[in-house]
Parts: sequence; structure tokens; C-alpha cells
Amino acid sequence: MRVYSGIDLGGTNVKVGLIDDNFRLLCKSSIETMPEKGPEDVFERVAEEHNRLASENGLQLDDICIAGMGLPGPANLSEGILINPPNLPGFENCPVRDIFSSKLGREVVIENDANAACWAEYECGKGEQSEDIAFVTLGTGVGGGIVCDGHLLHGFRESAGEVGHIIIYPDGRLCGCGQRGCAEAYASASNTAERAKEFVQAGVTSSLSAYDQITSEAVFTEAQKGDRLALSIVDETAKVLALLAINLQNAANPERVIFAGGMIQAGDFLLDKIKFYFDKYCWPSRKGETDLAFSTLGTESGMIGAAAVARRHFLA
Amino acid sequence: MRVYSGIDLGGTNVKVGLIDDNFRLLCKSSIETMPEKGPEDVFERVAEEHNRLASENGLQLDDICIAGMGLPGPANLSEGILINPPNLPGFENCPVRDIFSSKLGREVVIENDANAACWAEYECGKGEQSEDIAFVTLGTGVGGGIVCDGHLLHGFRESAGEVGHIIIYPDGRLCGCGQRGCAEAYASASNTAERAKEFVQAGVTSSLSAYDQITSEAVFTEAQKGDRLALSIVDETAKVLALLAINLQNAANPERVIFAGGMIQAGDFLLDKIKFYFDKYCWPSRKGETDLAFSTLGTESGMIGAAAVARRHFLA
Repeated sequence: MRVYSGIDLGGTNVKVGLIDDNFRLLCKSSIETMPEKGPEDVFERVAEEHNRLASENGLQLDDICIAGMGLPGPANLSEGILINPPNLPGFENCPVRDIFSSKLGREVVIENDANAACWAEYECGKGEQSEDIAFVTLGTGVGGGIVCDGHLLHGFRESAGEVGHIIIYPDGRLCGCGQRGCAEAYASASNTAERAKEFVQAGVTSSLSAYDQITSEAVFTEAQKGDRLALSIVDETAKVLALLAINLQNAANPERVIFAGGMIQAGDFLLDKIKFYFDKYCWPSRKGETDLAFSTLGTESGMIGAAAVARRHFLA
Repeated sequence: MRVYSGIDLGGTNVKVGLIDDNFRLLCKSSIETMPEKGPEDVFERVAEEHNRLASENGLQLDDICIAGMGLPGPANLSEGILINPPNLPGFENCPVRDIFSSKLGREVVIENDANAACWAEYECGKGEQSEDIAFVTLGTGVGGGIVCDGHLLHGFRESAGEVGHIIIYPDGRLCGCGQRGCAEAYASASNTAERAKEFVQAGVTSSLSAYDQITSEAVFTEAQKGDRLALSIVDETAKVLALLAINLQNAANPERVIFAGGMIQAGDFLLDKIKFYFDKYCWPSRKGETDLAFSTLGTESGMIGAAAVARRHFLA
């Protein structure tokens, strides 16, 4: 049996998992990142945890073909270098690939974390029957990836698939990136909550005013109970995501646009609204061509995707 | 010397050219399409013209490695079938690749005409130093293509790179495709003229009111003379093209966005305005990453690109 390791490097936790050629997750584990201890310490501990996990599951290091690591951008993927990751202070211009590879004693491939999750969808998730998918993850920000003609897009600065920063409303809300009107400025979990908060603070009557902290979960809960403000906020989120899907359709012609991240917990209540606006706004002759779906891979997708990216590299 | 044929099939004319391995156009010709005579007749005449051109230039049919044909969509490229081209009545569901191949006695590869022109830019135009370009052609409509990581994007229904139908203003101007607010609804040559005409007809004072027919050329001419309406129309066209370029940057991360088509005759007067809005609206940390340029290949790009696409197929 060939085994591939997947590492999902986050600011808080590092997830470690092993998959086989069928993308089956054989075992998994997680350790605290503690980035303040520095890259050498972090990757030493990740390698130790990886080896403990493998051995606990009856695997030798020789059984591991290759390891993949997904990490937050910006990074120089082909050189294996993290550039200036906001959630990993102390990792600026860090040659993560080579450090981890020397600790692990195995070849390591690195990939952007959203791209890795996109690739997991392509190999074994909602995209596995298709050569053409777009992936949109709805968390604090809106990230993503694109597979076109079976090829995971990277582009000039390896930042293709920055779908959250496609501009939906020119001169619209200010986004964290400095642009105005980005999809992320409306439809991330944080900005869905933020937009509701702004209306509540401006005095709009809403059951959301009873909340100490307005989260996107609160917005969806109250919208489902019929609160008018919450409903209008959810509608705008869904409309923006539909317009984003249409723009991705016209740019890269995916067969399916797959949404993931915390906010898809809202389920069909959200998905049906995105589909409604997609049908309303899309090119009539292309209606029905692109399908919209929610991921079912959950929080393991980054780890599985990183291993799957490494597997592709190994088999190529 | 290896020679590749390129055919650019349009509703009015069919262009025929031969290129070598350096993408040098060895000779070219053009005949009237006369689509009303039907596909068999059209491709018989194209093959005859092709053979006459080759022989006139001292080439035998055996010298031609392969032929490429660019055609207006929608088409099933992998099957070689035109579906329902608006400008080629009588060619519905026509197996153009096989008909032309049997007339020519050579393997034929077909490609969407805007994709072919994009590939010409990649191989021997403004994109030849890059693996990552986006191409936007400004004519009656706004078409285009995307090369990412050296790969010409096709997608699920082979309609990736439909950049003119990326939505810039949700709920904006009605586009010919049926969507609202598409880039094409503002920034095509026709819609640049049309927007000016609407203001003139509404009584806005402008030197354009002296024109019998307001064309995009007239709009650019009067804008350069300082006419306020014409200037505001050109500004809006430039802003829409800049926003389109930003959205392409975030989707596919091109190193360069290349504009082509009749409207680029306006030269730096237009290009500088697009660059101004690009810098104004783009992600600050990605400023300067993507370059904007006007094509220099002219009307031969479709023919050269079709031959270049066939060459890639032949060498693969």
C-alpha cells in the first residue's frame, strides 16, 4: 500500500493525516502550532507527531511516498517559501518546505491551503466526477481555488483562485485587502455578521439586537425564524455568492461551484438562496450548465488535499 | 521546414494563412464566406484557396503538418462541431472539422476564434514571455481567452474565457446575452457608441450630436478633442475594462492582460485610462503585479493563432 502524508498548517493548530491511493484517511492527529517558538521547533514537533501517528498505525517512514503541506499565503510555492503569513508571525520568508523535509526525511510539496482543499474536492469530494470545478470557502475571509481541464490553476504569482477578491460591487464596501466591493467584503462569515451589526447599531429593529455578539450563525438562526433584517442580510450574502459563481462560470467555465467553510452549516437554507440568485442573474442560455453544491469533506479537506497534491506530484 | 495552416472562419470572410515553427506568417489570403451556399461548398472553396496559396508559395500539401481553424462559438471543440453560430446560418450542428479535413486531406484542429487569438498572443504576441495571460478583444462584443500556467483554458462546456460576460455592475445595463451589467454591455465598441448615443438622444450637449452615426471611433475622436460627454463615456469604458482586468487577476492571476480588437486603435489615450482605473481599484499589495497592454498582432491574430493551436496539437 502506498501512503501519502498531509499536513494542514494553521496559525492555531497543525493537522496531520495519512491517506492511501483511494484518498481514504487512514489516521489523523493534531498539535498546537505555537508559532512563537519558531519554524525549527514547529516543524520538529510536526515531524515527531507525524512519525508517532504513522508508527501507531503500523506504518514505517519508508511506507510514506511523499508529504504535502497546505499553508496560508502568500507563499512562493515553487520555491517552498512562506512570505509574510499574517497568522504565523516569525515565519516571514521562511523556507518551510526544506525545513520540514529535513526534519521528516521525506520529500515535501507545499500548496496554498485553499488550493489544497480545492484539490481534495476534485479528487474525492463534490468535484470528483468533474475536470472543472471552482471552490469557494466561506470563513473569516473568502478563499478558493479553481481546477480547469483537470489542472489546478496557479498563475503568475501563484495566486490564481483568489475568488474572494473578485469585485462584485465597484465602489462598494471596503475589503480587508484594500479593494472596494470584493465578494469577501459582503459574503464572508465575518462580513455577513458585520453587515447585520451595522444595521442593528443604526437602530434597525431586529431580534438580533438581543445578542451580545452577532455572529453569522446568529444571523442564519434569526433569518430562519423570519427576522426581516437577518433575512435581508442572508439574501445579500447569497446574491453576492451567486454573482461570484456567475463570474467564475464566465472566467473558467466550471461544471460545479463548491462552497465550503463554516458558513455552509446553514445548509439548504443558504444553498437554495444562492441557487435562486444564480438562476436569476446568469446568462439564460447557460442556465443549468453549472451546478452549485456544498462540500461534505468538512475540516479534513485541507489535510486530505495537501496529501492528494503531494500524491499527484509523486505519480507525475 | 514544417508548415502549419491557419484558417479564421468568419461570417463574411475566411482568412487563410501558413506559418512556420517560428510563427512567421509565410503567406496569406482571404475569400468571401458566403455561408448561404452551405458548409460543403464553403469548405470546398477554402480548401481550394488553401491549396492554391500553398502551391503559389512553392509548398506541397505534404509540407503542411496540420491545419487549425478558428471559428465563432458556440461549438463542441473536442467533437469538431459548430452548434448554432449566429453569423453562419446553415451551419447548425455542422461537423466542420471532419468536412474540412476531408476536403483538405489533412488533420484539422478547431478552436474558438477568441481562444485562437489569445493563443497567438501567448506564442508570438504580447504574451510570448509569459505563461500566464488574459486576452480581451473589444469589437461588436467583448470576447477573450485565458492562458494559465501555459495552459489555454477550456472548461466544462469549452467556454472558459467568456470574459465579456463577467458581471461588473449587478442589475446594470442589459447585455445581448440576457445578463445585466456584463463588461460587454458597457465596454464593447458597439456599447461604447450606444451609451454615447443614448445621452445625445436624451439631449445632453455634445459635439457628437453633429454625427449622423455615432461610432466608437467618433466617441474617441471627440473625447480627445475634449468633449465632456465623450470623455465621460470613454472613462466609463476604461473603468469597466480595469475592473474586468482586476477580476481576471483574482481569478487566474495573469502576468499580463492583453487587449485587442478594433477599439484599441484609440491607443495610449485608452490604455492610459484603463491603467489609471486599474491602479485606483486594484488590491494595493498586488499593484504592479499584472501588466496591461494592447495587442500588436492586428487582424492576423486569429489565423496565426489557429495555426499555432494546430502546431501545439501536432507537437504534443
